[in-house]
Amino acid sequence: MAMLTREQVLVKKIKEWTESSFIGDDCAVLAGGKLVSTDTLVEGTHFRLDFTDWRQLGWKSCAVNLSDIAAMAGRPRYLTVALTLPPESNFPGGHLEESLEQFYRGFGQCAKTFGAEIVGGDLTVGPTLVVNVTAIGDSHEAGVLMRSGAQPGDVVIVSGNFGSSAAGLEILLRGAKSSGRQELLAAHLEPSPRFAEAWQLVEQVGSRGALMDASDGLGDALWQIAEQSKVDIEVDLAALPLNAVMTDFARACQVDPYQWALYGGEDYELVATISAADWQKNEADFPFKKIGVVLASPAQAGDSEAEYARVRLLEATADGKSANGVVNLSNCFKHF
Amino acid sequence: MAMLTREQVLVKKIKEWTESSFIGDDCAVLAGGKLVSTDTLVEGTHFRLDFTDWRQLGWKSCAVNLSDIAAMAGRPRYLTVALTLPPESNFPGGHLEESLEQFYRGFGQCAKTFGAEIVGGDLTVGPTLVVNVTAIGDSHEAGVLMRSGAQPGDVVIVSGNFGSSAAGLEILLRGAKSSGRQELLAAHLEPSPRFAEAWQLVEQVGSRGALMDASDGLGDALWQIAEQSKVDIEVDLAALPLNAVMTDFARACQVDPYQWALYGGEDYELVATISAADWQKNEADFPFKKIGVVLASPAQAGDSEAEYARVRLLEATADGKSANGVVNLSNCFKHF
Repeated sequence: MAMLTREQVLVKKIKEWTESSFIGDDCAVLAGGKLVSTDTLVEGTHFRLDFTDWRQLGWKSCAVNLSDIAAMAGRPRYLTVALTLPPESNFPGGHLEESLEQFYRGFGQCAKTFGAEIVGGDLTVGPTLVVNVTAIGDSHEAGVLMRSGAQPGDVVIVSGNFGSSAAGLEILLRGAKSSGRQELLAAHLEPSPRFAEAWQLVEQVGSRGALMDASDGLGDALWQIAEQSKVDIEVDLAALPLNAVMTDFARACQVDPYQWALYGGEDYELVATISAADWQKNEADFPFKKIGVVLASPAQAGDSEAEYARVRLLEATADGKSANGVVNLSNCFKHF
Repeated sequence: MAMLTREQVLVKKIKEWTESSFIGDDCAVLAGGKLVSTDTLVEGTHFRLDFTDWRQLGWKSCAVNLSDIAAMAGRPRYLTVALTLPPESNFPGGHLEESLEQFYRGFGQCAKTFGAEIVGGDLTVGPTLVVNVTAIGDSHEAGVLMRSGAQPGDVVIVSGNFGSSAAGLEILLRGAKSSGRQELLAAHLEPSPRFAEAWQLVEQVGSRGALMDASDGLGDALWQIAEQSKVDIEVDLAALPLNAVMTDFARACQVDPYQWALYGGEDYELVATISAADWQKNEADFPFKKIGVVLASPAQAGDSEAEYARVRLLEATADGKSANGVVNLSNCFKHF
């Protein structure tokens, strides 16, 4: 059943309370085409200092925010970074200044890599380490791709593998950092926003399609696109790009690799829908793989939530394919 | 001695580490004249839920960020608000949804009052309540007033009273909320950014002057302007606008009212310097009071910090005025 998560319910209410017409996509698109997005990482919820070093934390804090600009096919321009830090007398590891230097150098390296500039910030004291970043970008001159742009008949495409970040986290949780599988650790600790892929897409399709990043999980991304576009989506699980190192490790952990791929989150790959014609024309050159199709939703206004934005997952069976279920939103990767 | 605070030292280093040319004013001024600022309020550091209700917290979170736009004489446009909230099972007071509604309605009311729109946000879970707001504005068409614009011969002017917010906090700390003195409580709990005053100023003087808000205290504001403009400042304490209810309450508390006025912070009044000619021309109509003058600094490059950006405080004595000291930065209102 497509029950909304607590965060999704609250976001809908916040939209009412604030009368904001912007909330609901990766970024707000402002007058003049500026893009704005904000994200918070909280120690213990989003990261652990025994798993990540300060340079990696800086890089990732920047990368996950820039990914929201990539998720609209935008061009990153500016970043603000606000840190809430434990008091110096009680600073984790004891080295406030060295830690901050590593953080800001990692953050700055990521910003520079993707062409954004740090323009402001804030330092405050609090009991827990909290990193808040706001990213500002410009819309791509070819168009803006939003979550709401999917149309029946579109194909669903993705820019890379899913589940590697969740597998990397599992390695860290098991204290097995030195066991190899560096690509899984890197996927979790040092992700990269997919600007090149997003721009190649928007240059070919303009604003005709849907796009978001899978920061909260592929399952969540598929559902968000379906919900905001008022369509259904059918995904062929056999077509999902999975990394063999991830699937091997999942099996060793007795975890279904599709669980990580759909609900693990933090892969920062792009999920898009484009017209079948655009796909056929560009398939050979596109850094994307097709994983499904967009279907008309039979839902009517007033139908209960279970009846719209259905994301069906097709599984291979002995006699072809069969739907093995729908995206289970209660599994979606949410810190709320 | 003008020793830098820990935050000031770190901000200078962050500028080096990130190679950012923007950090150091209330807002960054971006290409095209957009203004951007970010601020964080942390429970226990910046507010206490037993002192403020959720509607007031929403209002103040919005107002203090908009004040950074007012501090450059800009026009507020957009806001993002990211909340880190304790888990619902452990939510202060137990009423997550009602509390959030009050917060967002207070925030939205402030945004609407000053013409800004809420365009994005984030909800995350963490052990402590943290509110991060980013404000985006446009430069005023008449100019931008920065901290660095003070020149010797300028007069120093302020838009209102100082010390009332610190007095309001003291009332709350003493559990004396119901003792009257509502204007002091309101100054602390529901401040307003001074847009009308800032615009009237910039319309008359253009970019010729210096401006900031006194969010971290009047003493801090004077020092920041002096430091970034490479000047000295002389302030006549007798000219400081003080609210009689504040001074009476300070005396009842056996506190020097100038301590609150200079170092209490959170008054969100404007501090500006403009040419003596501009002051003479506009004095009668300006919602500002003169409190001092800007002097040339005899400091040379390479002088130690104690020798530049001196802010002298003049006190009335039996035989005229005498300097009773300099702004003591170690007293400046800083949460770091």
